[in-house]
Amino acid sequence: MALVVQKYGGTSVGDAERIRAVAEHVAQTLERGDQVVVVVSAMGKFTDELIALAEGIGPDRPPREMDMLLTAGERISMALVSMALGARGVQSASFTGSQAGIITDTDHTKAKILEMRPERIIEALEQGLVPVVAGFQGVSTDRDITTLGRGGSDVTAVALASALKADSCEIYTDVTGVFSADPRVVPSARRLNKISFDEMMEMAATGGRVLMLRSVEFARRHHVPLHVRSSFTWEPGTWIVEEDTTMEEAVVTAITDDVSESKITVAGVPDKPGIAAKLFRALADERVNVDMIVQNTSTLGSADISFTVASTDLKEALRVCNTVATELGAASVESTERIGRVSVVGAGMKSSPGVTAQMFETLTAHGINIEMISTSSIRISCVVDAEKVGEAVRALHTAFGLDA
Amino acid sequence: MALVVQKYGGTSVGDAERIRAVAEHVAQTLERGDQVVVVVSAMGKFTDELIALAEGIGPDRPPREMDMLLTAGERISMALVSMALGARGVQSASFTGSQAGIITDTDHTKAKILEMRPERIIEALEQGLVPVVAGFQGVSTDRDITTLGRGGSDVTAVALASALKADSCEIYTDVTGVFSADPRVVPSARRLNKISFDEMMEMAATGGRVLMLRSVEFARRHHVPLHVRSSFTWEPGTWIVEEDTTMEEAVVTAITDDVSESKITVAGVPDKPGIAAKLFRALADERVNVDMIVQNTSTLGSADISFTVASTDLKEALRVCNTVATELGAASVESTERIGRVSVVGAGMKSSPGVTAQMFETLTAHGINIEMISTSSIRISCVVDAEKVGEAVRALHTAFGLDA
Repeated sequence: MALVVQKYGGTSVGDAERIRAVAEHVAQTLERGDQVVVVVSAMGKFTDELIALAEGIGPDRPPREMDMLLTAGERISMALVSMALGARGVQSASFTGSQAGIITDTDHTKAKILEMRPERIIEALEQGLVPVVAGFQGVSTDRDITTLGRGGSDVTAVALASALKADSCEIYTDVTGVFSADPRVVPSARRLNKISFDEMMEMAATGGRVLMLRSVEFARRHHVPLHVRSSFTWEPGTWIVEEDTTMEEAVVTAITDDVSESKITVAGVPDKPGIAAKLFRALADERVNVDMIVQNTSTLGSADISFTVASTDLKEALRVCNTVATELGAASVESTERIGRVSVVGAGMKSSPGVTAQMFETLTAHGINIEMISTSSIRISCVVDAEKVGEAVRALHTAFGLDA
Repeated sequence: MALVVQKYGGTSVGDAERIRAVAEHVAQTLERGDQVVVVVSAMGKFTDELIALAEGIGPDRPPREMDMLLTAGERISMALVSMALGARGVQSASFTGSQAGIITDTDHTKAKILEMRPERIIEALEQGLVPVVAGFQGVSTDRDITTLGRGGSDVTAVALASALKADSCEIYTDVTGVFSADPRVVPSARRLNKISFDEMMEMAATGGRVLMLRSVEFARRHHVPLHVRSSFTWEPGTWIVEEDTTMEEAVVTAITDDVSESKITVAGVPDKPGIAAKLFRALADERVNVDMIVQNTSTLGSADISFTVASTDLKEALRVCNTVATELGAASVESTERIGRVSVVGAGMKSSPGVTAQMFETLTAHGINIEMISTSSIRISCVVDAEKVGEAVRALHTAFGLDA
């Protein structure tokens, strides 16, 4: 008998028919002899509708009240899923994040989990009930309702799986798994049966849209095997597991793309210690997340610092940079609003030189200019013209032998 | 400085514009120097939409899950009201029933309040915040979310007003107060400026649709002055207060009507002790609420027992009656699905004989047959043909000098 946490996203509980399909699948899992804990998101676009309601009220959306508002969404879907289970003959009970013992900090709209106290979930399991838990939400140390930010329902599922020592955590969504590239960009992309946490993290960090970095990190840290699969086909999807050192690894597993970032260059800053620290401390203080950073030193004793930020943070980042640049005596601050990033990810890269060279050669052969480069032991990313990203991904997918 | 609990019903928070109007009114109340605690219902027809969602899932609607589902409604409206207050420059914070310390029994969908622990509301007031509290909901002694049943938001408001020792509890709705009769039935009905708890209770029990009996009872027991008024005109409405013995009381204050009940007659039961007890115990065990009861004994040693129940309970009540009638050796069980009840209410009736006679004469003059009669010290009710109720109410309103 295994204990499985099954997380159903918004499209998976989008209407009554889909909710009944979820109940049927949970029932079948139980009939196989497994125990199930269900975690649900809000139905379809309901969260967006709530946000629209709030926007209709006025310009201010205090984070504490936004959390109170948005958590109504999971409340509805979890009650309906529990009713559908009842109709299918499965005894269940729904629990809010608070009732499930998800204790968070007080950082409303993007709270972090501090502690899991899932006593009521354990009790429910012992009573033979299927607990249906609201994803995305918790209760703060100040006893206020909090939400966990984007991808928060996945985090709930992984945290529960870890706290309950579940055998696996299944993430049900509207795609059939993790692919070697975004199938909308690369029609010949293949579904991956199994990848390592490290690879999934690199993919999530560089544009893989199936899972958020945060939940993968959490799963890796707590050794929770993830299984990403479709609630429309119910077929096995992609397992994300600890790296399997007994197998030979593919050199390159996937190509990812991302066009959601902007580039800022602070040019002509004096080349002396502490300059970069001042700039990035100022950005951090304003809660701007910086992604890639490249610094070149010219022979003239001054340096150019380039970095990327989410396009949604560009305005705020430029404000900070302009202030700091003046203080530092920099020559100029320049920006490109829309850049493209293409990344090659593969755990086998560690022991296989030449991937970088092949990547650059492939891009060059397609006349694609490389503006910035950043690497990790299992990833190489290049910033290119946003218009060229699709072509770059397709070329690399073919060059590294990933086409189906 | 007074402390006022203001309760806003579903139409009062029906859309963004109405919610902003509520925020404006709260702000003006504060500017007068008063303190305010807001209690809200779910927006407009949102609760009905949630019920329709549940009906789309399947035939079973477990009460615990219905409560989880329906409480999403107030969660949304309270967060929006709090945001609107913020936009109007009023600091506020919303609280669920659980956070407001509304502790109930475990009788889901119609829970009773066992205890009020409004520490967080008191804290919020001390910090200069306007607490916005979810009506209709609480948390049970089993730590589950409960709802208080029909009219539950009014109960929340009255219970909070009592626990906080508020100076008054304002019930905002879409009518301008309590009238001498339903204005849809009697166009010449007048708004009452002030009535006693006893009168309001009799009215609520006999078809007055503005307040539920339960919240008036609660307010009377805890000495909470109620003020029923409109959130559309914002004009003073009707005060419901302790009986004022220094004033001369109107003999008749209002005429009410009710067509939501059915009548059952168990005919030809043996005229011996314990028969009625058996019948009404059996009905109580099946949770059927019985309203008027009339028993006639014939000269033949057998009796007819007639009583009224809510039409929604008729089927269940008939099932119970047929079983019990067989056991008792009754001759027959008959029922009328739709009856009308017209009632005359007035605190001055106690010291003013002749009201009963005048009521019967008036109905007789209009050719309206009286099927059952029941009285209290300040009310007389007659069951009449449902089709004749409107005519009966108008005739009595005129006869007792209530026309505007």
